[in-house]
Amino acid sequence: MIDTARYKVKPGAKIRLQDYSTKRDEAADRREVEDCLMPANIQKLSVLQERLYAENTRALLVVFQAMDAAGKDGCIKHVMTGINPQGVFVSSFKVPSSEENDHDYLWRIHQKAPRRGEIGVFNRSHYEDVLVSRVHDLLQSSQMPKDRLRPDIWTTRYRQICDYEKYLWENGVETVKFFLHISKDEQRKRLLKRIYDPDKNWKFSASDIQERKHWDKYMQAYEDMLPATSTARSPWYVLPADSKWFTRYLVSQVLAQKLEQMNPQFPELSGEKRAKIDECRFILEKDGLEI
Amino acid sequence: MIDTARYKVKPGAKIRLQDYSTKRDEAADRREVEDCLMPANIQKLSVLQERLYAENTRALLVVFQAMDAAGKDGCIKHVMTGINPQGVFVSSFKVPSSEENDHDYLWRIHQKAPRRGEIGVFNRSHYEDVLVSRVHDLLQSSQMPKDRLRPDIWTTRYRQICDYEKYLWENGVETVKFFLHISKDEQRKRLLKRIYDPDKNWKFSASDIQERKHWDKYMQAYEDMLPATSTARSPWYVLPADSKWFTRYLVSQVLAQKLEQMNPQFPELSGEKRAKIDECRFILEKDGLEI
Repeated sequence: MIDTARYKVKPGAKIRLQDYSTKRDEAADRREVEDCLMPANIQKLSVLQERLYAENTRALLVVFQAMDAAGKDGCIKHVMTGINPQGVFVSSFKVPSSEENDHDYLWRIHQKAPRRGEIGVFNRSHYEDVLVSRVHDLLQSSQMPKDRLRPDIWTTRYRQICDYEKYLWENGVETVKFFLHISKDEQRKRLLKRIYDPDKNWKFSASDIQERKHWDKYMQAYEDMLPATSTARSPWYVLPADSKWFTRYLVSQVLAQKLEQMNPQFPELSGEKRAKIDECRFILEKDGLEI
Repeated sequence: MIDTARYKVKPGAKIRLQDYSTKRDEAADRREVEDCLMPANIQKLSVLQERLYAENTRALLVVFQAMDAAGKDGCIKHVMTGINPQGVFVSSFKVPSSEENDHDYLWRIHQKAPRRGEIGVFNRSHYEDVLVSRVHDLLQSSQMPKDRLRPDIWTTRYRQICDYEKYLWENGVETVKFFLHISKDEQRKRLLKRIYDPDKNWKFSASDIQERKHWDKYMQAYEDMLPATSTARSPWYVLPADSKWFTRYLVSQVLAQKLEQMNPQFPELSGEKRAKIDECRFILEKDGLEI
């Protein structure tokens, strides 16, 4: 079993993404992962998710951020398939609508915060508002009041986001965040594949090429954001993403550990409820005999 | 013109509600207020609201909290009628639904946060979650995870609410909060009126009598909450509410001053937009001549 703690971003520490490998562990064995370790994790997730649902007091929010083609969709598909969709909801955050821009940036996010008992998955998230907004300097031309656009706006947003996630935790919604860390070269290969392969054409967007030009600026924005918003309760994991099966395994591993640590419990019946349930048993058992 | 600053609650100061009068100023003249001062304020609000709507970057959130029959509905009706409803939205927060209880308490609140350009009015609000929840000790039997229910839960919630309103301000949503301060005796008279007067019967609820029994506990909860959540940017006003016309006048006065101070502006056209608008003028003017 792999130790995932080393992928966790230390709160407040200065980081360089080049120090984080995008490659899988050489020692990891694909067959073992896909035949044993992954299925075992998904089985564990499935059991724990049912308990989370029954407990009905806490929720788990899973955030995915990454450059294009880093494997967010695939991760969600491979890790979450096999879990009862009655308790798993995926929200994809695309370019904000005009109604969304008319509100504060957490407005659309908060609406999708998971319900007690649920696992909520964010495919992109409020972190776009300190990434794409920063790389493309979108706030200057936005509807934000000009006097609120101070030079420290990104630090302000980190604080707002930390406050928000702290609030969620205090109200029962716990958070885990993944940055899928892909190399620029691997992205190139995957984008080309989307062009070559007719079944993948729908995933290709010409804008991906535009975004790719801003690679270094994105890396800088991530390097600034990750330690500023990684907290003990709501940590960021920087996961190597050049090898899809390995990334997915890591995600399943972190989530299984997180839910194990949350340790959700089937609710205990009070004496009163126990008496009621016994009464119902009696009625039902008798009912059968009357026929 | 009346000075409303004296009704503002000083952040952090210890207060006793018995030190705040529930009676109107003896000096205020009802005729002058209803014939001149109120209409002038509403006219001002109407003009400023159109500018706020045109500016389309900021919003104003107005929160009303009070004991039953203190005049929240009447205040909203009398102050907001006369303002274009395209830019004014009232949200009434009643007993939370089961879906709402499945979420954090700010979830339903945030959904109703006003859009840029709008005035959002909250008839009751997130403050119920530190008032009725506290008076009736509702959290113990709620879906909140037990380990989050620390003895300092109310202080924690004050901090969460302050963080939230600060976040809103930083994103363009400014807040003003009113506690309509009615005496227990005046409430008794108004509740009896609801029983005597057939046209008011629909407003009467037997639960009002139950809540009235907890009057002192409510006053304590308000005394604790008001200074803890009154801030320079998001102040509470404790307004005397035994005289409806006087309360309404004060509300209109505070709101007119607030919007004046926000000073919303029609957007200025850039050189480019000005050129475009001139081009359109030319097309339209020529278009008429071709007939």
